[in-house]
Amino acid sequence: MNEYYLQKAVAELPRLIETTVTPAVESKTLFRGDRIIIDLGDHYVGYFSFRMNWVDLYVDAPVRLYVKFCETKRELEDDFAAYQGRLCASWLQEEVINVDFPGEYRMPRRYAARYIEITVKSTPKRFVLSDFAFRAVTSGDVSAVASPVIANDRLREIDRVAVNTLKNCMQRVFEDGPKRDRRLWTGDLRLEALANYYTFRNDGLVRRCLYLFAATEPNDKGFFPGFLYEDPVFVSGSWYLMDYALLLVVSLCDYYRHTGDRETFLDLYPAAKSQMEAAARAVDGEGILSIPNGCDAFIDWCPDLRKGIALHGVYLYTLDLLAGVLQELSHADAEMCFTRLESAKTAAFEHLHNKEENRFVSPRDGDQYSVHSAVWMILGGVVDGKEGVRILHDALKSADSLKPVTPYMHHYVIEAMFKLGLAEEAMDYLRDYWGAMVDLSADTFFEAFIPGQPDFSPYGDRMINSMCHAWSCTPSYFIRRYACR
Amino acid sequence: MNEYYLQKAVAELPRLIETTVTPAVESKTLFRGDRIIIDLGDHYVGYFSFRMNWVDLYVDAPVRLYVKFCETKRELEDDFAAYQGRLCASWLQEEVINVDFPGEYRMPRRYAARYIEITVKSTPKRFVLSDFAFRAVTSGDVSAVASPVIANDRLREIDRVAVNTLKNCMQRVFEDGPKRDRRLWTGDLRLEALANYYTFRNDGLVRRCLYLFAATEPNDKGFFPGFLYEDPVFVSGSWYLMDYALLLVVSLCDYYRHTGDRETFLDLYPAAKSQMEAAARAVDGEGILSIPNGCDAFIDWCPDLRKGIALHGVYLYTLDLLAGVLQELSHADAEMCFTRLESAKTAAFEHLHNKEENRFVSPRDGDQYSVHSAVWMILGGVVDGKEGVRILHDALKSADSLKPVTPYMHHYVIEAMFKLGLAEEAMDYLRDYWGAMVDLSADTFFEAFIPGQPDFSPYGDRMINSMCHAWSCTPSYFIRRYACR
Repeated sequence: MNEYYLQKAVAELPRLIETTVTPAVESKTLFRGDRIIIDLGDHYVGYFSFRMNWVDLYVDAPVRLYVKFCETKRELEDDFAAYQGRLCASWLQEEVINVDFPGEYRMPRRYAARYIEITVKSTPKRFVLSDFAFRAVTSGDVSAVASPVIANDRLREIDRVAVNTLKNCMQRVFEDGPKRDRRLWTGDLRLEALANYYTFRNDGLVRRCLYLFAATEPNDKGFFPGFLYEDPVFVSGSWYLMDYALLLVVSLCDYYRHTGDRETFLDLYPAAKSQMEAAARAVDGEGILSIPNGCDAFIDWCPDLRKGIALHGVYLYTLDLLAGVLQELSHADAEMCFTRLESAKTAAFEHLHNKEENRFVSPRDGDQYSVHSAVWMILGGVVDGKEGVRILHDALKSADSLKPVTPYMHHYVIEAMFKLGLAEEAMDYLRDYWGAMVDLSADTFFEAFIPGQPDFSPYGDRMINSMCHAWSCTPSYFIRRYACR
Repeated sequence: MNEYYLQKAVAELPRLIETTVTPAVESKTLFRGDRIIIDLGDHYVGYFSFRMNWVDLYVDAPVRLYVKFCETKRELEDDFAAYQGRLCASWLQEEVINVDFPGEYRMPRRYAARYIEITVKSTPKRFVLSDFAFRAVTSGDVSAVASPVIANDRLREIDRVAVNTLKNCMQRVFEDGPKRDRRLWTGDLRLEALANYYTFRNDGLVRRCLYLFAATEPNDKGFFPGFLYEDPVFVSGSWYLMDYALLLVVSLCDYYRHTGDRETFLDLYPAAKSQMEAAARAVDGEGILSIPNGCDAFIDWCPDLRKGIALHGVYLYTLDLLAGVLQELSHADAEMCFTRLESAKTAAFEHLHNKEENRFVSPRDGDQYSVHSAVWMILGGVVDGKEGVRILHDALKSADSLKPVTPYMHHYVIEAMFKLGLAEEAMDYLRDYWGAMVDLSADTFFEAFIPGQPDFSPYGDRMINSMCHAWSCTPSYFIRRYACR
C-alpha cells in the first residue's frame, strides 16, 4: 500500500449532497399480511425512514416488517427466496425488521431503489405508517450539470437517464453500482470519469479515485487490482484484470486531457508507468501481450469470450493515448511508448489477424470470432479507414461472431465508430441499444442488457443484476461531447 | 392523564447501570450454514455487539446472519417458525441482520438472554466474528444488595436467582419481563417493590412507578388500567383489572410502611382514594365487589378460573392495609375504611362461604373451588387461626380445587401461610416450588410454572413465555424479611 497516494485520496473525500425525497404516499393503516408499495418517483440511493403510530390502541409488541427495495418495478414481483445465482444472496435488498415503539424508524443501511415494498409479518394491533422519507445521497451536484437543448426526444430521454445513472453511482467514490458491489473498479471508473467531464465535473472525485488505485498493492506481476475498497478500511482488491490495469493509465491520460492538470498527472505517472512496465514484461516472444498466471482480463461479461486479441487492443489503445500525452509534456518516456506501440501494432497484424478471412481471429483465441476483438483492434489502431469500417461491420453483422452483452462493451463499439468517422451510425447504435432500456421504463441504465433477453444475467440469476450501473452512463458523454442533437 | 403526577414520575427517571459482559468465547471463523452459540454465563438484559473481520480475502458482500436470543438453554432448540401461540410472534427474540462491512456491529435493540445463537445465512467468503460483548443494563445496583448468610444451600440459590430476576426487570420502570411485554403492571409492581425493599432499595423507582400509575387515565368506572407504557411516550394501558387497581393502593401502603415517606403517601393518596371509591361504587346489593362491564380481574393465569371470591379478598386485603396506614396518620378517611372493611367481611362470610362444605365456594363463581379463593379470603381476614389453616390445607390438598400456575399467585399462598403463622410450611412450599425451577437450571425465575408440566403456557405456546419475570422474585422478600436461613 502506498501511503503517500492514499493520503492524497483521503484528502479528497467528497461531500455527499443530501436530498430528502418524500413520496406521494398518504399514511397507511396496516395489519398482519398487508403489503404496501412506495414509489419514490425515480431511482435514488440513500436511507429510508418512516413513522409508526397506533390507530385505536397502542401497539403493544414489536411490529415485524419485511422491507424490500427494488430498483425496477419488475423486481417487486420477484421472489428473492427463489434466488439461484452465483453471487452472494445478501446483495438482494431485503430486510426483516422489528420496530419496537411508535415513533420514527430509520433503517440504518443504504439502499438503491425506486420502489419500496413493505409487508407486515406480525403485529398485535393495527398501526399506521406515515412520513415515508428517502434521504438520497450523491457526490454529483446536479446543479453543475448543463442542460443542452437536445431536440431528439429519444436522445434527450437517454441523456436524462444516463445522467441519473451516473449521479446515483457517485458516492464516496465512483461506485460500479449502488445496489451491488458498491465499490471502485478501474474499468467502470474510466467510463464514469468520461461522462463526468461532460456533466457533473466533479474532477476531484476522479482524482481521488486515481490516487486510490495508485495506493493499491500490485500482484507479483506488478499489476494493480481491478477494484478496491476504501470504506471503512482501505483494502486492495484480489482480482488482477490486465485490461483494467491499463485503463487506469487511460483514465489518467483522460484526466489530463480534460483538466490540463499537469501536476497531478506527473504525481501519478510513476504508478501509471508501473502498469506499462508490467504489461511490457507480459509481452511474449511474438510481441503480443499475454495473460500470465494469477492475472486475468475482463473485456465483457459475454459468456465463453476469449480475450487475447481484445486485451492486446487495450494495450495498443493505452500506449497510443499515453504516448500522445507524454509527447505533449516533452516527457522522456514518450519515445519508448511510441516504440512499443509500433512493435505491438506490427505483432498484432502479424499474429492476431487472419489474412485469409481478413478478420481478427487467431489460434491464440481458439479462432473465436467476436465484435470485441474487432472493436479493440480498431481502437488500438491496427486497422483504420475503410478497412476498419468493413471489419467492424462484418463483426457486428456476422451470425457467427460473439456480441457484446454489457453497456460497458457497447461503449467501446460506439467509440470505435466515432474513431472510424461513423458519427451518425454511432448515434443510431446508441439510440437503439440504450433506447431499448428506456422502452423498459429504465430510470437508470443496467449493468447487463441484451435486447429481447430480459432474463439475461452474467451471474446465473437476473434478480442479482444491478439495474443502475455506472458503466452504462456514457450516452451523456457521446451526446454532449459530439453535440448530437 | 394527570400532568402533575406525570412530571413527578419523569423527574425520577433512574440512571441505568451498565456492565459489559464479555463471554468466554474465542473468535470464530465462519462460513455459510455455520452456527455458533454464545453463553453469557448468566441471564442479562441489554445490548449485543461483535466485530466482524475477514480471513483470507475481504468479505465483498453483506453477511446475512440469523441471530436468536434465548433466556434458557432449551430455547436454543426451539423452532420459532413453528410458533402457534396467541401473543404476537415478534416478541420472539430473533433477527435477520445484514452486516455491510468489517468492523464493529452493534445490534440496536435490547434483548433478554443468557444464550445467543448466530447462524450464517449467506456470505461470499469465510469471516471471523470476535469481541462478543453484551452491554447489560439495569437500574438495580447490586452493590446495594446485602448478602445475608443463608446456611441452606437451596434457599441461598433460590435467593440468588430471585435477586437476579429482580435486577433484570429493573429498568426505566419495574418491568414485568424484559423479554416480553417489557412494561409496568400494577400487580407485578407490588411484588417487585416488596422484594426491592429487602434487596436493591431503589425506592425512587417504586415512587416513580406509583406516580406513573397515578398519572394514567381511569376508565368510565374510575379504575386505573392494569398497565402503562412510558417510553417513548406515556400511554395508559387498556385493560382494567380491578385486583390490580386495588394492588396499586396496596403498593402505596407498602411504600409508606417501608420508607416512612409520609409526604409521598399523602401526595398520592387522592389517586389511591379514587380507586377505593371506584371499588366502593362497584360493591353490589349483597355487599360483594362485583366486576362491572369494561372491567376485569387477573388473580392468576389459571385457565377457566372464576375470580369473584378472590377479587373480593383483594378488596378486603386492601381496605385492611389502607385503614391501618390512615389510622396511623390520623387521617379522616380511616374510619370509613374500617367501616367498609367490616361490612365487606361480613358480606364475604355470608355470600362467598359455603356453610355445608365449609369452603369458600359460591354460585357467584359457579361453585368453583380454588386455592385462589381460599388464599384471598384468608389474606382478606375473613377466616384466620385454625379455621384458616384448615381451609388453606383443604384447598391445597383437595383433588378438585384449581391450583395456582404462576409464581405470582404462589406468592400469595405463601403470604397467607405467614399470616396464619405457618412460617416453616411457607418456606417448605417456597423451597419446593421455586427450587423446582432451580432444578431446571433457572438463572431467573419464570412467568408461569407448573412443576412437571414444562410445556405449560398461558398463551398457547411455551416459546413465548417470559423466563425472567419479575413477579417471581419474591423468595428474596420472604427469605430476607423473615430471616429464613
